[in-house]
Amino acid sequence: MTTLLYQSDPSLAALLNPSSVAIIGASDNPDKIGGRPVYYMKKHGYTGKIYPINPTRDIIQGEKSWGSVQDLPEVPELVIIAVAGQAAVDSVKACSELGVSAAIVITAGFSETGPQGKLLQDRMSSLASAQGMRIVGPNSQGLANFGNGAIACFSTMFLEIEPGDGPVSVISQSGGMSAMIYGLLRNRGIGVRHVHATGNEADITVGQLAMASLHDPDIKLILMYLESLQNAAELAAVAALAKQRGVALIAIKSGHTPSGAQAAASHTGALANQDSTINAFFEQHSILRAGDPHELVRYAEFVLRSPLPAGNQTVIVSNSGASCVLAADAAEDNGLRVLPLTAATQNKLSMHLSSFATTRNPVDITAALLSNNRLFGQVLSCIGNDPKADSFVIDIPVAGRGYDVATFAEDTENFVSDSKKTVVVVAWQPAVAQAFRAKNIPVFDDEAQAMSTLAAAHRFHASLTRNTADWSAIPGKPIAPGKAGSILSEADSLDVLASAGVAVVDYIRCTDAHQAVAYWQTCKRPVVIKACSEKIPHKSEHGLVALAIDSEAKVREVFDSQWATLEKLGIRDKRWVVAPMENGLFEFAAGVHMDPVFGPVIMAGTGGKYIEALQDVFVLIPPFSIDDVMDKLCTLQIAPLLQGVRGDPPADMQAFAELVVKLGKFALTHSASIRSIDINPVLIRAQGLGVIAVDALVEFA
Amino acid sequence: MTTLLYQSDPSLAALLNPSSVAIIGASDNPDKIGGRPVYYMKKHGYTGKIYPINPTRDIIQGEKSWGSVQDLPEVPELVIIAVAGQAAVDSVKACSELGVSAAIVITAGFSETGPQGKLLQDRMSSLASAQGMRIVGPNSQGLANFGNGAIACFSTMFLEIEPGDGPVSVISQSGGMSAMIYGLLRNRGIGVRHVHATGNEADITVGQLAMASLHDPDIKLILMYLESLQNAAELAAVAALAKQRGVALIAIKSGHTPSGAQAAASHTGALANQDSTINAFFEQHSILRAGDPHELVRYAEFVLRSPLPAGNQTVIVSNSGASCVLAADAAEDNGLRVLPLTAATQNKLSMHLSSFATTRNPVDITAALLSNNRLFGQVLSCIGNDPKADSFVIDIPVAGRGYDVATFAEDTENFVSDSKKTVVVVAWQPAVAQAFRAKNIPVFDDEAQAMSTLAAAHRFHASLTRNTADWSAIPGKPIAPGKAGSILSEADSLDVLASAGVAVVDYIRCTDAHQAVAYWQTCKRPVVIKACSEKIPHKSEHGLVALAIDSEAKVREVFDSQWATLEKLGIRDKRWVVAPMENGLFEFAAGVHMDPVFGPVIMAGTGGKYIEALQDVFVLIPPFSIDDVMDKLCTLQIAPLLQGVRGDPPADMQAFAELVVKLGKFALTHSASIRSIDINPVLIRAQGLGVIAVDALVEFA
Repeated sequence: MTTLLYQSDPSLAALLNPSSVAIIGASDNPDKIGGRPVYYMKKHGYTGKIYPINPTRDIIQGEKSWGSVQDLPEVPELVIIAVAGQAAVDSVKACSELGVSAAIVITAGFSETGPQGKLLQDRMSSLASAQGMRIVGPNSQGLANFGNGAIACFSTMFLEIEPGDGPVSVISQSGGMSAMIYGLLRNRGIGVRHVHATGNEADITVGQLAMASLHDPDIKLILMYLESLQNAAELAAVAALAKQRGVALIAIKSGHTPSGAQAAASHTGALANQDSTINAFFEQHSILRAGDPHELVRYAEFVLRSPLPAGNQTVIVSNSGASCVLAADAAEDNGLRVLPLTAATQNKLSMHLSSFATTRNPVDITAALLSNNRLFGQVLSCIGNDPKADSFVIDIPVAGRGYDVATFAEDTENFVSDSKKTVVVVAWQPAVAQAFRAKNIPVFDDEAQAMSTLAAAHRFHASLTRNTADWSAIPGKPIAPGKAGSILSEADSLDVLASAGVAVVDYIRCTDAHQAVAYWQTCKRPVVIKACSEKIPHKSEHGLVALAIDSEAKVREVFDSQWATLEKLGIRDKRWVVAPMENGLFEFAAGVHMDPVFGPVIMAGTGGKYIEALQDVFVLIPPFSIDDVMDKLCTLQIAPLLQGVRGDPPADMQAFAELVVKLGKFALTHSASIRSIDINPVLIRAQGLGVIAVDALVEFA
Repeated sequence: MTTLLYQSDPSLAALLNPSSVAIIGASDNPDKIGGRPVYYMKKHGYTGKIYPINPTRDIIQGEKSWGSVQDLPEVPELVIIAVAGQAAVDSVKACSELGVSAAIVITAGFSETGPQGKLLQDRMSSLASAQGMRIVGPNSQGLANFGNGAIACFSTMFLEIEPGDGPVSVISQSGGMSAMIYGLLRNRGIGVRHVHATGNEADITVGQLAMASLHDPDIKLILMYLESLQNAAELAAVAALAKQRGVALIAIKSGHTPSGAQAAASHTGALANQDSTINAFFEQHSILRAGDPHELVRYAEFVLRSPLPAGNQTVIVSNSGASCVLAADAAEDNGLRVLPLTAATQNKLSMHLSSFATTRNPVDITAALLSNNRLFGQVLSCIGNDPKADSFVIDIPVAGRGYDVATFAEDTENFVSDSKKTVVVVAWQPAVAQAFRAKNIPVFDDEAQAMSTLAAAHRFHASLTRNTADWSAIPGKPIAPGKAGSILSEADSLDVLASAGVAVVDYIRCTDAHQAVAYWQTCKRPVVIKACSEKIPHKSEHGLVALAIDSEAKVREVFDSQWATLEKLGIRDKRWVVAPMENGLFEFAAGVHMDPVFGPVIMAGTGGKYIEALQDVFVLIPPFSIDDVMDKLCTLQIAPLLQGVRGDPPADMQAFAELVVKLGKFALTHSASIRSIDINPVLIRAQGLGVIAVDALVEFA
């Protein structure tokens, strides 16, 4: 048993590494909820004191049973509460008054049942917090630590699938998911130390338990299941410490669709997060996101057993030509590249392979493997030094009598330990998978799983090695106009953005046609005339935007017509913005909204009239760099046009990226006062000619 | 053993149901390639005559061994050739001269090794065809029929995983894939009768064997693995008969990416198909496409064990709230809908479920299942009649001690047999999966697999029930202009399309500015002036398209400038097209190209200058209906704009669909003479105002 360092918080240490555990509602029957923790702790060598509490029994599972928590010879460090309804609340009160550090409330029937249950839960947690006692749950399956046998948990899964200690911590809001993830990990031969479920999270959260298990020096990987993320700072702190200690974080955040979010609200009352914001946050904090428990565990197997690939070029080796085709398809589907090996490598390969084997990539070693069972090893050592190879996929769809799979696995293990390269295996036959897993090589059922895992691992590597933008020295300039809750007019909005360093259109404010005509005469270009009132944020829908006005008569005509419209809309204070008509290659947009969990979230992408309909945008959370914006621009649907096609010049996306960074810095500086900013359109000109914001809307908090 | 009806072709009947089998190169060792068919046929109860041929032996695996095929007491119906190189060719010659119906050439070293091998293969197949003998292979793993024990195949897989007869036929170019698909099916408890690999396909193809196995009345499902599709008519005939007989077809066509196609070319010399064309062909012929063997087998399990869902509304039932969330996410990710159940259904449900269970959809029955193991059955019968429910997904992520899984499965089976509804189960624990499979319920490892299978099954249902457009009565009008291999000028191209009934822009042809000015004066609208020569198909790239010309001076200016350009390009015969400047809400495009395998293929989608860069198009193969086009239009990236957003009117997509159908009919009628047609742009006006083709290019074959 390892010595554990739970320095984060003494009460959390009591949860994961208690010196004594009392069970209120203990049962002699190991299949009862109150009996199972006693059974598990005795079975898994827990060395602290176990205090079953049940006034109707003398002995429980061989241990002396006590009448109440007050009767115990010492104050237990951790108490498991497995009695129903009001008795659970009474137990919490008694324990907290006694000075117990932490309690796990297994009892259900609290906030998950509705408002009545929520009230009961709130009463219970205030009883605990009044005395400084921490609570896991209620409605929690409990916590399990296979490093010290403290299994304060009633899951049946530890009966179904034999536990084995290891470097992994599983922390989940849902008990079912914690058990399932544990089971899937064990089925892949992965050791698991921590299996924790937080239930209703009246007090302790997934983030807090992640922080606590991060202080266990044997933990190399933390897996989380979340239905809602309400404390971004907590998880950001976990991520920062994990990165520092070289611990990988992989998380499921479910409810990414409207139906899923609705189901999550019914399940744990989860407040919905914007899914694109979750992705931006995870990416920024190097938390690898998995879609479901199966994917989570595939990623886990990879991260534990392989170095992360630094690039996205993969080399496929198979004894089946058809698998070569399927693997190449799957690689490209997942954004990996399957480029030919260098001529030198192909020459080396051809010395080992028969004349009709393929040496390009995929490398089809054919059934020649049957006559030379060392071929996999020989091929790997030939291609291992190819400068193009970031990862290797060994695909074995058929291996029965005549194939020496043990040798394949041994040769692969030797290659990996010599080269430190990324190697994964695709094998659906259990005996083949088992042989490679025994040598610590990650194995996947099919090509799609292998390739999507490699692609995720490459993204993960990029996020871990990405240079974080340093925005520490951003000056906080005061914003001149606007008062709380107000929406600024277009002109005021443009002024605010200009103060943030954004290039905005040159314009004048005016209140009558006379001023506009004078401006048009000096301007010597067609102009745009827009009625400007903070009361009409969506002016184009009222016909209050007139483009390309190129005569004095037209200027006057527009003013007459817009004046009438404003009158009809009840706008007394009639003002206009007149600006030269600007042109660009593309209309983009950039914006900010304040997220209650994540703070300022920056959005950018294809703008113009159809911004909502086309949804061709991306999201970033500050701080981020110009390079980060440039990377995201490549993910847009419109991306193929930005370099210039069919004779068009390339667009000045660098200037747009600079605008987005300025907007982000401004939003972060003024996050307390700004509610939202929308700049649409931003006209993108040809490379070197910059971008220009021609309309904007700023809203104060 | 069932009586088999192989009426398709007597020589194919000899392959699948031979009365006698000779093995040239037979071995006494059942682990040798020449020994394994003998071993398998004896083991699996083949009742025809087995003739091992090996001049060095008297007895082979208990059967009399013969010196040569000529020595046999009868002409064998089928011969397996398992001798190397030239001996294989000699054997083919001897067999064909003797009057053998068909031979399976297992021997490798033919076209897959390069041009030399290809020559040898061609010689061998002409020897056979000269005498009317059919050949499977060479380089074939062989054919296996578990309905009659005719296992003319050397795969080790039948040793690894016990065969079991059933309603499935597996036919593959690749031996490895046929074995793998067989293994995956058997692992799901699915019986498999036919397992055939065609190898190099010197003669017999996957399509021909599919047709042959379609004549086996016990076959309900045919699974195919293809790397190239070179005979569309053959597969179309299989599909037509399969549809008539209620046999489902599911196929992998690998090599759908450039890397995959390259690998396929290396593997079987596969000629690349355009992947979008394959999709259109499969969809039209109701062949369900799977991405890889794992997905193929998931689809197979579904199709064999469940009716196809008629709609895409699914109802999720789970004992875990977290799984409800994951399943709802997966459903929506796959285009399924998770709508709330009707109030009446929810009321009924609430009588069975505890107050804190969710009755909306997903239905979270919670751990209440532990105290009432009949809950799954009760819930299913409550929701079974909900008019919104097309399919049901039962998700059981946790079921250990205390859960009566056998009862869950039995209740589900009863529900399915009473209601004939689509029900699938998600379960990763083998015991749970096994319990449901034993009751003939399809089971998937995770929510993503279940939902993507339901979505595929719904698409499959739609393609099977789709009304096929009847184009039988299309008149074949002669096309006036153009000669073989020629590219028509814009004006001639527009005339050809007008003759096909396509609305084209009103235009005049002219040869000087004078005519153009006269036209401009009568036209009373801005005009477009385009130099028109069949020698310059991409005129806009030469600056030979002038838009919105609105004065006499500008008309003359454009003519001067374009005249100079034409002169520079060496065009003597200078002609122009002048047309009124037309406007539309959107620029679309439609086109035709003649595919060597599939004939005319119609493309349509977002047009304009960026058509190649944006790739927002779809493909259809004639015949198709206006509704088919309308369905495809919904799949475009631009689709959200077509209904009219932000105050825009809806676009006349009906008129565009009519244009596409006219183009398709025209292309089919003139498929012998047309090489390609491109109409770009087609201007789409507001609903009711039609569409108009303003530029076109027709190329003759």
